[in-house]
Amino acid sequence: MPDTKTWTAALLIIGDEILSGRTQDKNVAQIATWLNVQGIRLAEVRIVPDVEEKIVAAVNALRAANDYLFTTGGIGPTHDDITVDAIAAALGVGVVVHPQARATLERYYETRGGLTEARLRMARVPDGAELIVNKVSGAPGIRHGNIFILAGVPHITAGMLDALTGTLEGGRPVVSVTIGGMVPESEVADLLRETERAHEGIAIGSYPFFREGRVGANFVVRSEEMAQAQAVADLLQASMESAGYLVVPGGI
Amino acid sequence: MPDTKTWTAALLIIGDEILSGRTQDKNVAQIATWLNVQGIRLAEVRIVPDVEEKIVAAVNALRAANDYLFTTGGIGPTHDDITVDAIAAALGVGVVVHPQARATLERYYETRGGLTEARLRMARVPDGAELIVNKVSGAPGIRHGNIFILAGVPHITAGMLDALTGTLEGGRPVVSVTIGGMVPESEVADLLRETERAHEGIAIGSYPFFREGRVGANFVVRSEEMAQAQAVADLLQASMESAGYLVVPGGI
Repeated sequence: MPDTKTWTAALLIIGDEILSGRTQDKNVAQIATWLNVQGIRLAEVRIVPDVEEKIVAAVNALRAANDYLFTTGGIGPTHDDITVDAIAAALGVGVVVHPQARATLERYYETRGGLTEARLRMARVPDGAELIVNKVSGAPGIRHGNIFILAGVPHITAGMLDALTGTLEGGRPVVSVTIGGMVPESEVADLLRETERAHEGIAIGSYPFFREGRVGANFVVRSEEMAQAQAVADLLQASMESAGYLVVPGGI
Repeated sequence: MPDTKTWTAALLIIGDEILSGRTQDKNVAQIATWLNVQGIRLAEVRIVPDVEEKIVAAVNALRAANDYLFTTGGIGPTHDDITVDAIAAALGVGVVVHPQARATLERYYETRGGLTEARLRMARVPDGAELIVNKVSGAPGIRHGNIFILAGVPHITAGMLDALTGTLEGGRPVVSVTIGGMVPESEVADLLRETERAHEGIAIGSYPFFREGRVGANFVVRSEEMAQAQAVADLLQASMESAGYLVVPGGI
């Protein structure tokens, strides 16, 4: 296997509504899955409230430690939408109205009551930024260097990710093969540990569950090589079957 | 209003399965909601992989900045369950087998194949810890000072939270009143900003949505005083109604 760089991204979720428990986050899973297809691994997530100093500290920690930083939330028109100002502060740049964003919003709101002062807030970007197309609603996402500032509403986030697909440099995607069955993970823990140790470049995850009073688990073999992941999964399945367990490819 | 301390907690989610997008997290919302009932605010969340140095760094940052730190995940019997070792390393203490945890596991596995070496891993705790009852499965949660080490499988997490209910010192819970309607938030942004500014101790969140091609929003007024939250929500609703919007108590 060639020695390749592992590209990483961090995700910063900005919003009191997630921390209060009011809103169930869906962007971690959505962005993680999308990143993996780009050959980029989600290395860390932080969720912070709508407080500038908290956002600034997280932005600076995460962008320094990763190839990319994605943020979601706080880019709407209301007083609690402070993401752009906070990221500009973190970068030490000013906030400017982006002419193309202004033009997009003018068109979008032409038949929707016009571009008010509040709506114009959504054209503000950290100085030096470019835009990320938003096909779903008016306000665009923002890219500034390795920082990608996305909407928090999941289907708008999805549209912005779609616009970014294939534009980021990445490495090889991690692929995975899952097997599973009514296997108590504590009975195969040694097998899992030794199998992982014996195969460089793979990671084995064990995810237990309880169904109808019985305990089982799915086992996920991850690798950058599909053939390797499949071979190790086959090996695990054969070992579990010879120990008397019924194991299903794909997991249960 | 008496001057009261605001109690905060951080949550550290440990697990490759969340960062890979394989598993949709449910513990942020569940723990946030539970904490609020205890009078404690969830101030920050981090999600890190099953890598000791990442866990250690996050544990030390988060426990220093908050009254409480909760962790979920990584306390099972398999090789990728390294939470106890990582937290012990963060605290600078050793790892010991807790006699009561061992006795609990012995009883639990008496009719399930006995207490193997792998299963005994679930009795290991950072030295000085006490146990958190787990009514759902065998392995207990762990408390060490202001750190609460919980399971990652949401219904087991829930059982451990249940065992902790009412045992933590907290302040006054934040209560909220929600109103909502087919109101574009960009048309009421000034009203929201000015209303929040005019009422100390309240925070107003604005959460837009799109339904059947139309834009609307829910507005959440948060306060430690239910009467104040209700009064401000009533004020907002009256202002929106006099501007011609249909607004529904409770939100839509």
